[in-house]
Amino acid sequence: MIKSIEWTEQGSVRLLDQTRLPGEQIYVECRDFVSMAEAIGAMRIRGAPALGVAGAAAMALGAQAIQAGDFEAFYAELATLGERLANVRPTAKNLTWGIEQIKRSALKWKELPLQALKEALVREAKAILEQDIQTNQAIGEHGKALITNGSRILTHCNTGSLATAGYGTALGVIRAAFAEMKRLHVLVDETRPVLQGARLTAWELQQEGIPFTLIADTMAGHFMKQGEVDLVLVGADRIARNGDVANKIGTYTLAVLAKEHGIPFYVAAPRSTIDLSMTNGEAIPLEERCPEEVLQIGGKPIAPEGTKAKNPAFDVTPSRYVSAIITEGGIAYPPYERSFCDLLRS
Amino acid sequence: MIKSIEWTEQGSVRLLDQTRLPGEQIYVECRDFVSMAEAIGAMRIRGAPALGVAGAAAMALGAQAIQAGDFEAFYAELATLGERLANVRPTAKNLTWGIEQIKRSALKWKELPLQALKEALVREAKAILEQDIQTNQAIGEHGKALITNGSRILTHCNTGSLATAGYGTALGVIRAAFAEMKRLHVLVDETRPVLQGARLTAWELQQEGIPFTLIADTMAGHFMKQGEVDLVLVGADRIARNGDVANKIGTYTLAVLAKEHGIPFYVAAPRSTIDLSMTNGEAIPLEERCPEEVLQIGGKPIAPEGTKAKNPAFDVTPSRYVSAIITEGGIAYPPYERSFCDLLRS
Repeated sequence: MIKSIEWTEQGSVRLLDQTRLPGEQIYVECRDFVSMAEAIGAMRIRGAPALGVAGAAAMALGAQAIQAGDFEAFYAELATLGERLANVRPTAKNLTWGIEQIKRSALKWKELPLQALKEALVREAKAILEQDIQTNQAIGEHGKALITNGSRILTHCNTGSLATAGYGTALGVIRAAFAEMKRLHVLVDETRPVLQGARLTAWELQQEGIPFTLIADTMAGHFMKQGEVDLVLVGADRIARNGDVANKIGTYTLAVLAKEHGIPFYVAAPRSTIDLSMTNGEAIPLEERCPEEVLQIGGKPIAPEGTKAKNPAFDVTPSRYVSAIITEGGIAYPPYERSFCDLLRS
Repeated sequence: MIKSIEWTEQGSVRLLDQTRLPGEQIYVECRDFVSMAEAIGAMRIRGAPALGVAGAAAMALGAQAIQAGDFEAFYAELATLGERLANVRPTAKNLTWGIEQIKRSALKWKELPLQALKEALVREAKAILEQDIQTNQAIGEHGKALITNGSRILTHCNTGSLATAGYGTALGVIRAAFAEMKRLHVLVDETRPVLQGARLTAWELQQEGIPFTLIADTMAGHFMKQGEVDLVLVGADRIARNGDVANKIGTYTLAVLAKEHGIPFYVAAPRSTIDLSMTNGEAIPLEERCPEEVLQIGGKPIAPEGTKAKNPAFDVTPSRYVSAIITEGGIAYPPYERSFCDLLRS
């Protein structure tokens, strides 16, 4: 299995640099908080669940360098690191979740000597990584019930091993379904501007031997109208209490198209993506990235010099477009607020 | 005004090579049918109305080289050239229209000596070019009535001077509206895979000083939901009798999104785009282009080697999504079959 992120024996964190894929398979080694934060901001590691794992790892690495006389001073510095990191990618709930897990563990073990506490935080970050893989496998097991043999699945962005510590969310469901029923076909949206579909999902599906076809984002509606899509399956960066889903820009368009064609629209995400503090999707902060991602491809300009571009990295799909949300605890159906209560209690 | 195509004093046809824009402004000179057909196939010149003009020019150039003893032999060869050319870009009605105009002129002047007939066909091709500019200006004059000052207009692909002999269809309407009301803003879809929006529309709007913002195709739905789009305005490659519109891939998605958000969806096209022989859009042949246009950007691969891609160049928007169709004869409203009868009679 592809490892997007792992701890080395030397106590550093090794990341597969996703900005270089599929052309080059290059790993970066992060020894401290700053290099992890840079890697997260530059999207060397991306995908909501992977951001949770990377967030926890960044915090654990950051903790090692804190010079403090007592727990209060230590914790204050840790909290500052957490705030800085959360702002690097504000949309994904999982990043905040990973940060908070480490902060909570620190509070839990506040009686430990600081050195022992620092070591415990690394163990916690490693456990979060392992847990993520198991979570994804559970999502896959639940989700495959929604897929029938022969299904033609449209997906967007990357939700596979690369977007998680391993296995994947929406791509994990496809992986689990493919293991049982061999006749699946995936239509992969290239996902401009950062091309996660073309660069990452295509690469993962190729490695797994799952049949797929790449399309430009402009083509999804056409193939739905032609009757060539049976279901849409995507991930999520944050899900509000009412089931509104923030995900990669372009997701909302797919949801509207799916509704227009009577095609089910499914979201796969770990429970850590659900943000009960948000009543609905309107309050979810949407990251606006630099216009160069739109204006250039592979460092080469595609528009005339001086062109202005907008680059919202995410959009919000209102829950009325969402047929079901697949989590590691089971599948949630509308009304989501009630379903989430059941899921989060279990 | 930018000239996408013009006749030289030496009797050749000069094209602005649109595959090189916006990086380089390079002209290619076509002296014969084969070089024109190559330029049309490689999209050095593209856009439905420009294809009509270029088709007529290619036929006129082709006619010069025909060695025939009498009119029947001459006309048979001309018809063969026409068939070859129509297959190079099968979707645009205008290409066939341009071809047919030259064939019809040849029949009309069949009594002329062959040399005089060949000269007459060049004059006819030149007249078609001039006529196209006037047609577009008339489309602009009619269409601007649909635009109010302050409008934020979403457009797709390129429908400007470059897509025509000059002035433009949908972009011609924007140009005409902007000349009167200075507060317009254009949201430009980059239009993958060939990026006509990013490369060509952005370039034209910049030259005209019309304010615009470039977005990736994935973003259109998001901006509509945010209330930042007042109307959608696109061109057309072929319009069926019932008002179904074949246009650049991605147009259908915009039409569905516009309907979902209650935003008017307008099409601007010359009457030569309307194909009364097609009862509806299902019969319109949709060109499938080579997968490399999806798999590469600027010659650089964006997906792993061995990836399969689909590349339909056009889609069909059913007439129920189309609020109005702007032509040089006036604006057609649903039901289109009746409106077209009135328009084509006038």
